[in-house]
Amino acid sequence: MPAFSSFSSLDFLLPHLQASAMEQLSTPLQGVTNDIKGRLSCYKNDWLDACGSGVRILAPTAYIFFASALPVIAFGEQLSRETDGSLSTVETLTSTALCGVIHSIFGGQPLLILGVAEPTIIMYTYLYNFAKGRPEMGQGLFLAWAGWVCVWTAILLFLLAIFNAANIISRFTRIAGELFGMLITVLFLQEAIKGLVTEFAIPKGENPTSEVYQFQWLYANGLLAVIFSIGVMITALKSRRARSWQYGTGWLRGLIADYGVPCIVVLWTALSYSVPEKVPDGVPRRLFSPLFWDPESLHHWTVMKDMARVPVGYIFAAFIPALMIAGLYFFDHSVASQLAQQKEFNLQKPSAYHYDLLLLGFLTLLCGLLGLPPSNGVLPQSPMHTRSLAVLKKQLIRKRMVKSAKECMKQQASHTEIYGKMHAVFVEMDPASLTAVDKELENLKDAVLKHEDGKDENGTFDPEKCVDANLPVRVNEQRVSNLLQSVLVGLSVFAMPLIKMIPTSVLWGYFAYMAIDSLPGSQFFERMLLLFIPPGRRFKVLEGAHASFVESVPFKIIAAFTVLQFVYLLICFGITWIPIAGVLFPVPFFILISLREHVLPKFFSPHDLQELDAAEYDEVAGNPFHRKRSLNIREDESQPDTEDYDAFDWSPDEVLDEMTTNRGELKRRSQNFNERQYQVYPEGPGYSNS
Amino acid sequence: MPAFSSFSSLDFLLPHLQASAMEQLSTPLQGVTNDIKGRLSCYKNDWLDACGSGVRILAPTAYIFFASALPVIAFGEQLSRETDGSLSTVETLTSTALCGVIHSIFGGQPLLILGVAEPTIIMYTYLYNFAKGRPEMGQGLFLAWAGWVCVWTAILLFLLAIFNAANIISRFTRIAGELFGMLITVLFLQEAIKGLVTEFAIPKGENPTSEVYQFQWLYANGLLAVIFSIGVMITALKSRRARSWQYGTGWLRGLIADYGVPCIVVLWTALSYSVPEKVPDGVPRRLFSPLFWDPESLHHWTVMKDMARVPVGYIFAAFIPALMIAGLYFFDHSVASQLAQQKEFNLQKPSAYHYDLLLLGFLTLLCGLLGLPPSNGVLPQSPMHTRSLAVLKKQLIRKRMVKSAKECMKQQASHTEIYGKMHAVFVEMDPASLTAVDKELENLKDAVLKHEDGKDENGTFDPEKCVDANLPVRVNEQRVSNLLQSVLVGLSVFAMPLIKMIPTSVLWGYFAYMAIDSLPGSQFFERMLLLFIPPGRRFKVLEGAHASFVESVPFKIIAAFTVLQFVYLLICFGITWIPIAGVLFPVPFFILISLREHVLPKFFSPHDLQELDAAEYDEVAGNPFHRKRSLNIREDESQPDTEDYDAFDWSPDEVLDEMTTNRGELKRRSQNFNERQYQVYPEGPGYSNS
Repeated sequence: MPAFSSFSSLDFLLPHLQASAMEQLSTPLQGVTNDIKGRLSCYKNDWLDACGSGVRILAPTAYIFFASALPVIAFGEQLSRETDGSLSTVETLTSTALCGVIHSIFGGQPLLILGVAEPTIIMYTYLYNFAKGRPEMGQGLFLAWAGWVCVWTAILLFLLAIFNAANIISRFTRIAGELFGMLITVLFLQEAIKGLVTEFAIPKGENPTSEVYQFQWLYANGLLAVIFSIGVMITALKSRRARSWQYGTGWLRGLIADYGVPCIVVLWTALSYSVPEKVPDGVPRRLFSPLFWDPESLHHWTVMKDMARVPVGYIFAAFIPALMIAGLYFFDHSVASQLAQQKEFNLQKPSAYHYDLLLLGFLTLLCGLLGLPPSNGVLPQSPMHTRSLAVLKKQLIRKRMVKSAKECMKQQASHTEIYGKMHAVFVEMDPASLTAVDKELENLKDAVLKHEDGKDENGTFDPEKCVDANLPVRVNEQRVSNLLQSVLVGLSVFAMPLIKMIPTSVLWGYFAYMAIDSLPGSQFFERMLLLFIPPGRRFKVLEGAHASFVESVPFKIIAAFTVLQFVYLLICFGITWIPIAGVLFPVPFFILISLREHVLPKFFSPHDLQELDAAEYDEVAGNPFHRKRSLNIREDESQPDTEDYDAFDWSPDEVLDEMTTNRGELKRRSQNFNERQYQVYPEGPGYSNS
Repeated sequence: MPAFSSFSSLDFLLPHLQASAMEQLSTPLQGVTNDIKGRLSCYKNDWLDACGSGVRILAPTAYIFFASALPVIAFGEQLSRETDGSLSTVETLTSTALCGVIHSIFGGQPLLILGVAEPTIIMYTYLYNFAKGRPEMGQGLFLAWAGWVCVWTAILLFLLAIFNAANIISRFTRIAGELFGMLITVLFLQEAIKGLVTEFAIPKGENPTSEVYQFQWLYANGLLAVIFSIGVMITALKSRRARSWQYGTGWLRGLIADYGVPCIVVLWTALSYSVPEKVPDGVPRRLFSPLFWDPESLHHWTVMKDMARVPVGYIFAAFIPALMIAGLYFFDHSVASQLAQQKEFNLQKPSAYHYDLLLLGFLTLLCGLLGLPPSNGVLPQSPMHTRSLAVLKKQLIRKRMVKSAKECMKQQASHTEIYGKMHAVFVEMDPASLTAVDKELENLKDAVLKHEDGKDENGTFDPEKCVDANLPVRVNEQRVSNLLQSVLVGLSVFAMPLIKMIPTSVLWGYFAYMAIDSLPGSQFFERMLLLFIPPGRRFKVLEGAHASFVESVPFKIIAAFTVLQFVYLLICFGITWIPIAGVLFPVPFFILISLREHVLPKFFSPHDLQELDAAEYDEVAGNPFHRKRSLNIREDESQPDTEDYDAFDWSPDEVLDEMTTNRGELKRRSQNFNERQYQVYPEGPGYSNS
């Protein structure tokens, strides 16, 4: 499965890859049929495997439900503002639920999560503005025309699937992926700011004479919006990292990390009801969206017949946006699927890139005919889904294994027998194991056997520890969690009355949160930051865990590459501002593919390109230079040899600052507790490669 | 100078100390006379030494001016609210300037910074409420009566100075110091919250019918206050750590760290003028304070004659608050002085604890007679002052030394000669050197001589590097910087029209900043946090730099000690709430001294007490356990031996979280760049003592 190796890992094989792709293109439908064969073979297990975990399957389900429902609600509000209410949260939720249910049952890779995503919102905004501006169509035929766009998109997706296009997904390298991600981030921020500004103004189509729209209340509403949105943003960002907090017990931290953001939305919504009574209703403003059973929503079921009324010219014109959307979906859907199937997850069941594209075509068609915005594979929910299932599986296997091990121990069994039993349990729990189980369990085996007749010095044999430390990663690959979470999204359509209680300002904060939260881990972003670090301070980066390119590529090259990428980002962002041609905003990304293949190699060496546009996120752990730095301000110390860090910029003032408590008391720092009084210059890996 | 060794370092010598104190008490004025002799001998140099640094002396001057002016302004506003305007920013600034000037000229230790501090504000609030409640005095005689309190305080301070009380300062141990600091912190927070709440209400004595006090504008004012105060708090806290930022050049970071907070106050004040025109004046509210030349301020010069009108009974009653204030000042003044003279600073000139207490008595008397709130030594400004002068001195010596070294090198001088010249320069620059200079310069000597006829492998001899790395700490001990900054504070009295532009909400934010900023470095606070860290997570503390008691004292003991201290804190805080008896709030601290001496040793072992109530802030550098933790989620790795960390609680989920980018991509972490592909289990100091 060449497509399985994500991004540019195969860059050097591109010619070959191209060739192989060509071969396959000569036999259409091959990819799809392979995928179907592969998935059918384990389709029954996809359902049975869920039973093993029983009710515990609800944990990942709830986790993913909240993770995918919230953005869909936010996008719904954005869409309803951009399209004057033609589409709203009801539609985005419905589409997400509908596509999710279908995909979880008939889809190829059930780990893939579907949902209405930002690119769709942007494209639909362009479609609406175009349709509205044309007297022959106007707002009335917007959805019908969008239906035609979906028809074209579906056709294109079918073709891509039939001709095994997924094989060339590896040409969408990190540079393209992160550039696109950064653009989305910028658009999120723009949305947040635009939203916040509107809170100070009278919304279009409202009666300006009503009390809430008098200046003092507009102003109060705006100030409340500032407080709520910034509050939501900050608290959400903090809660996101809860798992690594020092404080609180493990389960609490886990809970906050997994469900903190939805909780925070609820919390701030509740808080928004604590405004004094004298404040008129409508301050702060809340989500505006028709209910599912309102006529605005119900007419969707009849959009299809309007499609006939769209002038022929526009039916063909719909091909252009369709081309864009198809490109975006092909790209988004496959990458999301890839990240849900990274090799670290050790998936045992086959992928289905080609078939899933085919299905996506059908789903797009269906949404188009119902006048709903289509859904596609989403990030980061898809890998989140796989991850939560990996944790679940680990818990399950661990429980069974430890249990059987303890039984054996009761029966005074030898450690060889104990390991044998554990091995058996593992195979039983994971029948689909294609890879060599024995090799994977080697560490566990050693861990167990080293306790054989007291060979081990570290005291008695503790099955928990052994298993915890040595169990290979396994994912509970099944369809139930995806199905259930989609159903939940569907049900939340009926919770609209509750959802409408959310203040709009909370959503702006949520947009800002999504934007900022997407930055760490983007090497593009990290490289941009790197440009702002003066040379003398770069050791700070090396101190912490850092991407490998920092060490393997000369700074000048990194800078050039990054500036280039940034300029390209500006161009892409600029295009989104062009009134109607903006619909072409994905074009630069498609162009980037060939630029990456044919132009960039002319300016950058293969090695540097490979590092800067790496397939996987390669990280290097940090070296604590600072230990040494702190030594320098005490007298009763052996003199540290300055050679390996005097290239760095750290003023004596800074060290003093580090070593002074806030009431001005100086700290006496030692290397470690034993050497507290007589400090010596430390040796070790920390300094070996500085 | 036993008093020089701060806090409890001499706890085991207490009996002896007591004895010695007794001896000395039998010869009054001895301490004072010694101090005067000592300081007179270097008085001339105190002025001359400043000339050497020329205009560069202005850097520390400006630094300390801003650091001490801002809180004085904030306290002024607090005082004017508590005393219905009887005292305000004008008085606090005047007192600070007056006392500062006098102390900088006639004071013993010119490094000590004086200012009106929070304890004074609290005491004066009690005095005011007491006076106001007495028909015989009322608001009119408040300042006169306060004058009498100052008279008594002065007398008590004289007695303390004459009988060498400063010798027993070492009995105020860390537990008392940090408890008091924590109480101040709590009171700051209380002030910030109280202030913020009042922003939503009509201020007393204002006309409730005016437009700004209609509900909608009160509410808007409140919301603005929330935004400004939280904004100031967060930005100030961030700027405080600027020196260790990764981004920006060194001088910029230094600038922000040193002058960021005043800049932020200016910034937010400017921002507060950006509210729309339609918002009525008075929203947001700004500082209210009479000008220096307003009658409210001028009548101070005549307070003295009112003192005669105070009923005799109250004149004697004034002794009780005087006792409290004297105790607080004795404590505050001496500790501030100690921290300004920590041994790490290598001060060459003698201390003058006894004499400075005497002078403080005079200053208190003077302030009392002028109806000003008295000033005393302040934290953290005093040690900040010494620190900035240490940096200055280092720059000066370095410059001269390197210059002369380079001259020698031009003349092909031997390294022995070069070192000789450097040594000469050092002695010349620092004539007051009492300590053995040769010993101090040993490191430098070695560094220089190891380059003798190419003995050294590390390339050519670079004077800058040698000096930077090996120059002993020296402080530019002089009186000019203190004098100038006091004069600046005095001048800022005439800047009141500008100061009055600051929104009150900015001050509430500033109070919150002062509170939170005072917490790190307080071992009491760090111990409280420790209680909230579950056992399995304590390795996180050990990972970072941490106070030594964490390793040297059993957790149970730490917990008991901390809970005890916390309960005591609650009692102290409770007392401040008692209407008039609140004036006795310092009593628990005085009691604590004897508790510490006689009761605590019954419950805690000497070793544990010594650790938990340590004289100096002892810190141990961290051990990066996390490196090891991150290993576990990759397969192509040798199995890490779990023994030394499997006692810790870190869910596989948490590690996965750490190793996943925000778009769901898994990171591949290596120990260091060279071992990127084939990772091995790291050895080194990091794990030696885990």
